[in-house]
Amino acid sequence: MSHSWLTRTETDQPELTDETIESIHRWWRAANYLSVGQIYLMGNPLLRQELAAEDIKPRLLGHWGTTPGLNFLYAHINRIISERSQETLYITGPGHGGPAVVSSTYLEGTYSDIYPHISQDETGMGRLFKQFSFPGGIPSHAAPETPGSINEGGELGYSLSHAYGAVFDNPDLLAFTVIGDGEAETGPLATAWHSNKFLNPVQDGVVLPVLHLNGYKIANPTVFARIPEEELLELMRGYGHNPYVFTAGFDDEDFVSIHRRFAQLLDEVMDEIAEIRRVAAEADAARGDAAQGDAAAGDFEGAVAKRPTWPMIIFRTPKGWTGPKEVDGHKTEGSWRSHQVPLAGAREDSAHRKQLEEWLTSYRPDELFDDNGAPDADIARLAPPQGLRMGELPAANGGLLRKPLELPDFRDFGVEIPERGGKIAEATAVLGKWLAAVAKANPNRFRVFGPDETASNRLQALYDVTDKQWVAEYESPEVDNHLGRIGQVMEVLSEHQCQGWLEGGVSAHGPARSDELL
Amino acid sequence: MSHSWLTRTETDQPELTDETIESIHRWWRAANYLSVGQIYLMGNPLLRQELAAEDIKPRLLGHWGTTPGLNFLYAHINRIISERSQETLYITGPGHGGPAVVSSTYLEGTYSDIYPHISQDETGMGRLFKQFSFPGGIPSHAAPETPGSINEGGELGYSLSHAYGAVFDNPDLLAFTVIGDGEAETGPLATAWHSNKFLNPVQDGVVLPVLHLNGYKIANPTVFARIPEEELLELMRGYGHNPYVFTAGFDDEDFVSIHRRFAQLLDEVMDEIAEIRRVAAEADAARGDAAQGDAAAGDFEGAVAKRPTWPMIIFRTPKGWTGPKEVDGHKTEGSWRSHQVPLAGAREDSAHRKQLEEWLTSYRPDELFDDNGAPDADIARLAPPQGLRMGELPAANGGLLRKPLELPDFRDFGVEIPERGGKIAEATAVLGKWLAAVAKANPNRFRVFGPDETASNRLQALYDVTDKQWVAEYESPEVDNHLGRIGQVMEVLSEHQCQGWLEGGVSAHGPARSDELL
Repeated sequence: MSHSWLTRTETDQPELTDETIESIHRWWRAANYLSVGQIYLMGNPLLRQELAAEDIKPRLLGHWGTTPGLNFLYAHINRIISERSQETLYITGPGHGGPAVVSSTYLEGTYSDIYPHISQDETGMGRLFKQFSFPGGIPSHAAPETPGSINEGGELGYSLSHAYGAVFDNPDLLAFTVIGDGEAETGPLATAWHSNKFLNPVQDGVVLPVLHLNGYKIANPTVFARIPEEELLELMRGYGHNPYVFTAGFDDEDFVSIHRRFAQLLDEVMDEIAEIRRVAAEADAARGDAAQGDAAAGDFEGAVAKRPTWPMIIFRTPKGWTGPKEVDGHKTEGSWRSHQVPLAGAREDSAHRKQLEEWLTSYRPDELFDDNGAPDADIARLAPPQGLRMGELPAANGGLLRKPLELPDFRDFGVEIPERGGKIAEATAVLGKWLAAVAKANPNRFRVFGPDETASNRLQALYDVTDKQWVAEYESPEVDNHLGRIGQVMEVLSEHQCQGWLEGGVSAHGPARSDELL
Repeated sequence: MSHSWLTRTETDQPELTDETIESIHRWWRAANYLSVGQIYLMGNPLLRQELAAEDIKPRLLGHWGTTPGLNFLYAHINRIISERSQETLYITGPGHGGPAVVSSTYLEGTYSDIYPHISQDETGMGRLFKQFSFPGGIPSHAAPETPGSINEGGELGYSLSHAYGAVFDNPDLLAFTVIGDGEAETGPLATAWHSNKFLNPVQDGVVLPVLHLNGYKIANPTVFARIPEEELLELMRGYGHNPYVFTAGFDDEDFVSIHRRFAQLLDEVMDEIAEIRRVAAEADAARGDAAQGDAAAGDFEGAVAKRPTWPMIIFRTPKGWTGPKEVDGHKTEGSWRSHQVPLAGAREDSAHRKQLEEWLTSYRPDELFDDNGAPDADIARLAPPQGLRMGELPAANGGLLRKPLELPDFRDFGVEIPERGGKIAEATAVLGKWLAAVAKANPNRFRVFGPDETASNRLQALYDVTDKQWVAEYESPEVDNHLGRIGQVMEVLSEHQCQGWLEGGVSAHGPARSDELL
């Protein structure tokens, strides 16, 4: 399987057909249907009967607002994965968007692979719905048991640093990273954008950030949605990105046109990424030392990597897109009122229940699922080939990649103590020598993260074998000591960032190249 | 005393004279001399004898790198305070820049006012030097005992949110806020820039952020210094600011010219702020409801405040400016090597000690201090008038402003319980009613901070009496519930930001207007 960051033209794909666009739309409708079903239903999953009070869960929990956007993006990136054989992690920052990840992995089949009782039929769908946010079931956010998840989805703010952590030393991996516009207000996320100054464009993989600008939080507009668009673009350019804005859902544009526009945008962005990778790889080849770091080589000019301007997407769509336009006379789609459960009285209130039924049938489930309740073939074929479905990617299932680090015997690094008190040695300096040996023995899967304190904490022996990875500007060898375009030490003055990188790296890191496992 | 945010022309100030520029430069040299003295000396403060080993502290601790920049800015803002009667807090983000704040408050006289044994003479100067980072003395960062400090200076990242917290409800207060470019990498600081979407330009004071771009941390360049300047400007514009770049110290421009350029820039920026305030106050007056919030008034158009584009300054100067250019053959001024103590061997190594002596005498202390060791009159007159010196500002000395909140009797909000288990009530909803009464009784000095959870946590009774302050864009009354240009509830999805605002507010908050106390 090739993972070579090719452009669409290079992969020799046919033009985008109407059939492909249609299957994306059908996938999206199916995922939305399954998401609404999870939030509300404990019976009658395919609406074979009129919706009754006892079909509705007694306590409604879950988050609809971000879900349709997440489903939309999952559907579209599926096509990219299939067409380009692109190993892709789907990272979802937006809080409790669990229904989307569960629905999408159910549609692609990985959910049933892992949990056979949640089968792709009416019975399985009924269980899928009932288990969600239900006693004995699954949480409402992307939790460890969710296929494709690399971290507990509880705390907001770490999607982007997790994404970077995951792609460090994973050169073939794309982290398609959806950042909530609420999450974007957090400190950890606000500084995580600067991770692009630490990403090597050849040795590491690629992060494609998608700012999910649906405009609302629990009860407020989001800051990012309420600044002029030009200001937001400046912010993204200031973070070093080339931003693309995609807006949909606020007028009467038909969905075929919307999907076609987004598919074309994704192709454009993926082509831009392929071009960045190509240029960077050529520059590395010209240097003649593309394969490994140049730590301690004294090769200052060689160490300088030109930082690419990576693309990112601002995805401006209504909160609760395709959900109820109004509930009890209040605007719901496109407002904070669809953040969580828009029809809170669906069990007790027959008007709410009726509206829920209309909402569910608006997706026309009879066109999406066959008589047994399995996703229609037209939907199923949008799923990437086995091995590349996002719910089963080895990088998202760390256990598949686990391999012990090569660890030198620590006894070899012991300090000889001829007599009690007879020797002065710094504990961390001794540790540093052992860490240097670990770094050397594990060049592509061991990094040290710290907030500008590696030497200050006396671990500087690491610099005998590796550098600090730095893909921002260089000034001179006299002041830029131990900086290199490839390095196993990552220093940035943000504990949040270091922690996020570390978490993402530990979760998603493979033995060397994950294609060895595919 | 008038605090009316006037332009330089309106305050009828004479042109900037050479004498004023000269006294700024002399202040800066004196503050730098005192800072170096604090870091190194335990005797011989005025260099009346040749520097000897025993004059040097046995253990050298302290941070030179950021100090000259902080001293420069302190000197300059002094002039602004005097000329415009501008109540000003000096907030220093850069880590351990304690020597600067101590030196500057010593020069202005407030240090000796509070600590009479640290007198403005040779004996006092000797004590000032010795106590710094010395057993039984003072810490190396701006600590609670430092005049003018509002928060312990240990944790990086909160300067900007503290500044905003301090000026909320303090309409006459300027927070002159120096942000380190290392600190700028932290998450809390990265999101704190967005605080400007929550600042009312009439009811609250003003924050003037100065990004101290000296380029280096302990052992690394900073991210902000190693991106193209245009990218940094876009970032600042993206954060909603109008950025000004001031660069000095990298060529042979003389100090008179440097000081004149910066003084003119500060005047320009302060005039811009005055103009923003004037326009905002006029808009309020036109609305006819300038004095108070319009909570629950249903006046949506009236609630909309146009967000001003506040200025900010990028202050690009060498790290360790005016310090040793080279130490042991390595570039020191303008590099991370001057972050902490550039001449680490000054006690044992006579060459280092000689270089330290040259460094100290380069400030020509004999021209700065009289025979008794007191600051020359020409320096002393740069200090603002009593009451406005930054080390004594009431807002920086919370104890001076402390006044009990009006707290309604909580018993009046108790839930009647006719019998055990006989009533259902939500604890936080009951608390919310009491908080609403507190908010109403203390309209200008009580705010509630939360990460988009006030109603979700059932404290929504607050909205019966006040709004959420919001100075970003508005969409419609249907979705922008309880948002107002003035409000006592502050919601942003960042616990760091909420915490920083709260800390700044609690520290710097006065009973109503701090001019009542001056």
